[in-house]
Amino acid sequence: MVQKYGGSSLESADRIKRVAERIVATKKAGNDVVVVCSAMGDTTDELLDLAQQVNPVPPEREMDMLLTAGERISNALVAMAISAHGSEAWSFTGSQAGVVTTGVHGNARIIDVTPSRVTEALEQGYIALVAGFQGVAQDTKDITTLGRGGSDTTAVALAAALDADVCEIYSDVDGVYTADPRIVTNARKLDTIPYEEMLELAASGSKILHLRSVEYARRYGVPIRVRSSYSDKPGTTVAGSIEEIPVEQALITGVAHDRSEAKVTVTGVPDHAGAAARIFRVIADAEIDIDMVLQNVSNTAGRTDITFTLSKANGPKAVAELEKLKGELEFDSVLYDDQVGKVSLVGAGMRSHPGVTATFCEALAKVGVNIEIINTSEIRISVLIRDAQLDDAVRAIHEAFELGGDEEAVVYAGSGR
Amino acid sequence: MVQKYGGSSLESADRIKRVAERIVATKKAGNDVVVVCSAMGDTTDELLDLAQQVNPVPPEREMDMLLTAGERISNALVAMAISAHGSEAWSFTGSQAGVVTTGVHGNARIIDVTPSRVTEALEQGYIALVAGFQGVAQDTKDITTLGRGGSDTTAVALAAALDADVCEIYSDVDGVYTADPRIVTNARKLDTIPYEEMLELAASGSKILHLRSVEYARRYGVPIRVRSSYSDKPGTTVAGSIEEIPVEQALITGVAHDRSEAKVTVTGVPDHAGAAARIFRVIADAEIDIDMVLQNVSNTAGRTDITFTLSKANGPKAVAELEKLKGELEFDSVLYDDQVGKVSLVGAGMRSHPGVTATFCEALAKVGVNIEIINTSEIRISVLIRDAQLDDAVRAIHEAFELGGDEEAVVYAGSGR
Repeated sequence: MVQKYGGSSLESADRIKRVAERIVATKKAGNDVVVVCSAMGDTTDELLDLAQQVNPVPPEREMDMLLTAGERISNALVAMAISAHGSEAWSFTGSQAGVVTTGVHGNARIIDVTPSRVTEALEQGYIALVAGFQGVAQDTKDITTLGRGGSDTTAVALAAALDADVCEIYSDVDGVYTADPRIVTNARKLDTIPYEEMLELAASGSKILHLRSVEYARRYGVPIRVRSSYSDKPGTTVAGSIEEIPVEQALITGVAHDRSEAKVTVTGVPDHAGAAARIFRVIADAEIDIDMVLQNVSNTAGRTDITFTLSKANGPKAVAELEKLKGELEFDSVLYDDQVGKVSLVGAGMRSHPGVTATFCEALAKVGVNIEIINTSEIRISVLIRDAQLDDAVRAIHEAFELGGDEEAVVYAGSGR
Repeated sequence: MVQKYGGSSLESADRIKRVAERIVATKKAGNDVVVVCSAMGDTTDELLDLAQQVNPVPPEREMDMLLTAGERISNALVAMAISAHGSEAWSFTGSQAGVVTTGVHGNARIIDVTPSRVTEALEQGYIALVAGFQGVAQDTKDITTLGRGGSDTTAVALAAALDADVCEIYSDVDGVYTADPRIVTNARKLDTIPYEEMLELAASGSKILHLRSVEYARRYGVPIRVRSSYSDKPGTTVAGSIEEIPVEQALITGVAHDRSEAKVTVTGVPDHAGAAARIFRVIADAEIDIDMVLQNVSNTAGRTDITFTLSKANGPKAVAELEKLKGELEFDSVLYDDQVGKVSLVGAGMRSHPGVTATFCEALAKVGVNIEIINTSEIRISVLIRDAQLDDAVRAIHEAFELGGDEEAVVYAGSGR
C-alpha cells in the first residue's frame, strides 16, 4: 500500500516519530509499504523566504532545486525514525523513484513512473520512502516540482505504477464530510464517495484532495483513503464510479464552498461575433483559467455585459490585460469584484431526481441569498453569491437536502489541510 | 576557474549576496566560473540535530540523503543571487556534476569526475554551481557524502577534471600563515607554498586546507589559492613542488600545532617478536589511525613500553580494544593521556640545512618544554609535548627560525575555519 503524509503530519521530530510508528505497524500487519512525504511543516515557506531575500524573481529551475531539498529532508528523517522502530527503510528522490515529468519548472506534469528501485527495495523487505512533489524532466534531466497537489499526485501515481491495493492520504482531517465541519456542525463523515463526485467537490472548493490526484486515481482505478494521522479512524474511501451506483440509490453527497474566486465584468461590449472570443483569448494567453461565465442578453443598444470568475490571485493581471483591449473593442468598462463566493451541491442523485435545482434555489432564497451566476454539470450545481453569505448558504443547502448526521462533527485544530 | 565557498561565507542571505557579487565580477573579468558551495553556516548541525532526535544511531545511507539537502539549498540560493546580479547560473548536485564515488556512506572517496553537464553549462555562457561534499556511488547509485574536507576536495577534483587555471578556496582567513596568528602575533602570511610543505602543515594540525584536497591538487597539478571572502587580498597560492626550489633557496616555511591527539601507552609488554604487531593489528582492525609511535628499549626484565598517538575521538575505543588483549599478551597496563599536544616545523630547507633539529630542540628547551616523542620526515619535525605548553612552544620555534614579519597579523573573528 502507498501512504502519503502531508507537511502538518510531519512538522516536528515528535510527529515524525508518530508517523514512523504507524508506518512500521502497517508493515508488521503484512503489507508492502511505500510512503510519500511532503516537506516538514514550515520548511517550504522558509525556503521560499530565503529565495525571496536573495532574488525577488528567482529563476524557476533553481527554485525547483531549492524546494526539493525540503522533501529530501523529511523523507530521510522518516526513514531514520522507521529504522529506530525496528524496520528498515530507504528514501528516494522523485528522480531516483522513476517519476519522469515534463520540463515545466514549478508546475511539471507526470509523464511516466518507472519505480524499479522502489520495487527492488520492497522485494528486499525494505519500506520505501519517496519524496513527493518532485520528479525529473524527461528531456533536460533537470529536477522539477509538480505544482499544487504534487505530493498527493506522486502518491497516487506510484500506487498506480506499483498496482497498490490502496493509496492512503493522511492529513489532519479524518475524512471527507458532507460539508466543512467548521461551518456546519452536524456535517457527516462519508464512508465512501465515487471518483466523479470527489472530482466535483475538489473542483468546487474542497481542499481535502487535489483535483489532479483524484483524476489520476480515477483513470488508473486506484482507491484513495482519506485519513487523519492523529487517529486510527478508517476515514473516507474514494473509489468506484457513479456508473456503478444503481440509479435508484444515487444520492446527494455534499456541499462545497470556495472563497478563492473573484468576478470580472466587461460592460457594454458591442454585440458582434468575435468580441467575446477576443476577450477570452486575451485571458487565455495570459495563462489565466476561467471558471463560471455569464453573458447577458444584448440590450436595446446592441451591447452586452460579459462576466466570468477566476482565481483572486489572477484578478489584477486579468483586469490589466482587458484594459489594454478597450480601444480595440470599444467596451464601456472593466469591473472587478472580489467579494464573491461559490457554493456547490454535488451528487450523482441529481441526474435522476428532478426538482433538485428547485429545492436548491428555494433553500437559498429562504435565507435571503441572491444568486448572481449559476453553473451546472450532470452531478453538480454551483452558484456565485456574496461571500459574506457563504456560511448561511452552505448551512441552508446542507439542511434542505438533509445531509446532516446526528452527532456534532469533530473538528481538529488546523483542519482543512 | 573554480571557486569554493565554505559555510561561514554563506551563513545568511546577506553573505550569499556578497558572494554572488564576487562570482559575477569574476565572470565579467572574462573567466569561465565554476563554484562549489558548502551548506549554509548552521544547516548541517541543525540537520544532524533533527536526525539525532528521531534516531540516536541514524542509518548512514539516510544520513547522506539528509545532509546533502544542505548543499542543495546553498547552491540553489547562490545561483538565484547570481541571477539577481545579472549573470545566469545553474546549480547541480554532486551526482548531476558527475562526481562518482565509492559506496562508503559518510566517508566516500572520489573515483572519477565526469562533469559533462558542467562543461555544457559553461559553453552556454552559464556560471555552474556544484554542491560540495557529495557524489553518487558507482555501484549502488546511492547518494554519498565525502567526509572531512569533502567540499574542498570536490572543488579541487572539479578543477582537475575541467583543467581549470586555479582553484580558489574561500573562508574567513586570508591565507596560510607561518603560524596560527591567534598564537603568534607577528606571524607572516605566505605568498606561495609548495604542495609538499602544505601537505605537511595540513597533516600537522593546520586547518586551512584539508590534506586530501591538497594531495589531489598535487597529483593533478591544480594550483590552489587560499583567500578570504571578506576582502580582496590575493591570499596564498599553493602550487609547485619542493623539487623545483633551488636547494640553496629552500626555506623553513611555518609552524603548525595540533591539540586533537591523545597518547596511549601499553606498559610492560613482553619483548618478543609479534607483540607489537598484535597491538597495532588490533588498533588497525578497529579502523583507528595511528600517528606517532615510540617504543622504549627493553628493560632488564625483557619488557618494553609501546606508545602511540591517535585522535582523541578514538581514544576510548582504542583503550577498550587493547584491554581485551591483556590476557593474551600479558602486558602490565594500558595508559591513556589526553593532555598532549603536537607542534611541528615544516620546510623544504631542512633537507639541506643541518642543525635544524638542534635549533628546534634548543628553542623548546629554552622555554622549558619537554619532548615526549619526536617524529620527522624529510621536510618536517614534529614533537609531542604537554598541551598546556603548546602556545609557548609555537612561539619559541617561530622566533628561533625568524619566521615573523614586521606587522601584526590581522585576525578575523572566527578565523581558523
